[in-house]
Amino acid sequence: MARARRELMSAELLGKAAELFAERGFSGTPLQEVADALGISRPALYHYVLSKDALLEQLVEGSTQDTAAALAALRADDELEPPDKLRRAIVDMVGRIAENPARFVLLDRSERHLPEAVGEEHRQLKRAVLRDLTAIIAEGIERGAFRSVDEEVTAFAILGMCNWVAWWWRPSRKGGPEHVAEEYAELVLRGLLHRDAAEDTSVQATIARLREDLARLERLVEAEGLPTRL
Amino acid sequence: MARARRELMSAELLGKAAELFAERGFSGTPLQEVADALGISRPALYHYVLSKDALLEQLVEGSTQDTAAALAALRADDELEPPDKLRRAIVDMVGRIAENPARFVLLDRSERHLPEAVGEEHRQLKRAVLRDLTAIIAEGIERGAFRSVDEEVTAFAILGMCNWVAWWWRPSRKGGPEHVAEEYAELVLRGLLHRDAAEDTSVQATIARLREDLARLERLVEAEGLPTRL
Repeated sequence: MARARRELMSAELLGKAAELFAERGFSGTPLQEVADALGISRPALYHYVLSKDALLEQLVEGSTQDTAAALAALRADDELEPPDKLRRAIVDMVGRIAENPARFVLLDRSERHLPEAVGEEHRQLKRAVLRDLTAIIAEGIERGAFRSVDEEVTAFAILGMCNWVAWWWRPSRKGGPEHVAEEYAELVLRGLLHRDAAEDTSVQATIARLREDLARLERLVEAEGLPTRL
Repeated sequence: MARARRELMSAELLGKAAELFAERGFSGTPLQEVADALGISRPALYHYVLSKDALLEQLVEGSTQDTAAALAALRADDELEPPDKLRRAIVDMVGRIAENPARFVLLDRSERHLPEAVGEEHRQLKRAVLRDLTAIIAEGIERGAFRSVDEEVTAFAILGMCNWVAWWWRPSRKGGPEHVAEEYAELVLRGLLHRDAAEDTSVQATIARLREDLARLERLVEAEGLPTRL
């Protein structure tokens, strides 16, 4: 119970701090104001967070670190094919950003004001995210699932569309983040996948297509009530 | 000659001001510092710009206004098909942002500090950009060129990937902005276009595909040296 209360308080603290930092800037917001906004005393605040730098560090960890961990796990997953990895990466990123857009914009805006150690960790995490996403796309190209694109530029395109969610997403939008993630994943996967079997020009694939088209033709003829015997 | 020098100076002034504002914030940068950075006196600076607000206004005009005008013109163009409009929109946005990434990031970061009138103009321009891009996608769906997507979410996806260029693009990258625009446009258009004939399930289209596949099979059998007669 005490632990649950503590976690709830930490979440509220981080949310409130993100809001205040985003509004007034990191350097322009003393811890006292964070305490005031939460309706607790400054000594009570120190029960949850040791310093303003530590608070910012937690905010960084709460977003970029989770994304980096999720992408690293997806990249290393031997059970998943690259298209599934990419779909899950997009769902993960859109979901995380839509959950707390203000925190994400804050993170971007306070990048230059991060204390050196936190800033360096943040930059490393961002590089890891780019590297893992690029590797997943490269794996998809190697395995013949994706067409041959510039994998890093494509990774930037995906990061851009997902990150930008923080700038326009509002919880009041109909459809929820799942709808956005689904539209994004479809757009990217259709944009990357070889155009179905038409790309595979082997004898086997061509025969498979012939069979499919014959079956479709059969269904069409039946459905349109044409004579099934000539 | 005087006019050319004046324009050159204006461009340098805007570039330098964007840099300083991005570094130190709009409110944290007195005009005196802009003058100092340009190596001119403050009275000389007033020859080019009337106030700091006017300077910011020019910076806003230089980016969002041009984009809004370009998109409005594309939307209204009766000669172009929606896929071509969308391709040109992407090329236009990526090119404009890559040309001056710092200015774009500055604009985003100083949004909350814009003087009321400039801020309102900026917001209107952003809404117009979203509206026109959404309309181009909707037109593509109506005309049967694009599959049926959520046109506004798709517009946000495109704006996100293009805008994000300001965050990662460096002039030292190989390939130039044209390469990025080309990769982006391919990704989006392939993601939106119907999958060629495979979507058309009419009798005629199915028979056409059968003919194509038979011809391909014939070529394959010949190429691989299999007996052409069984």
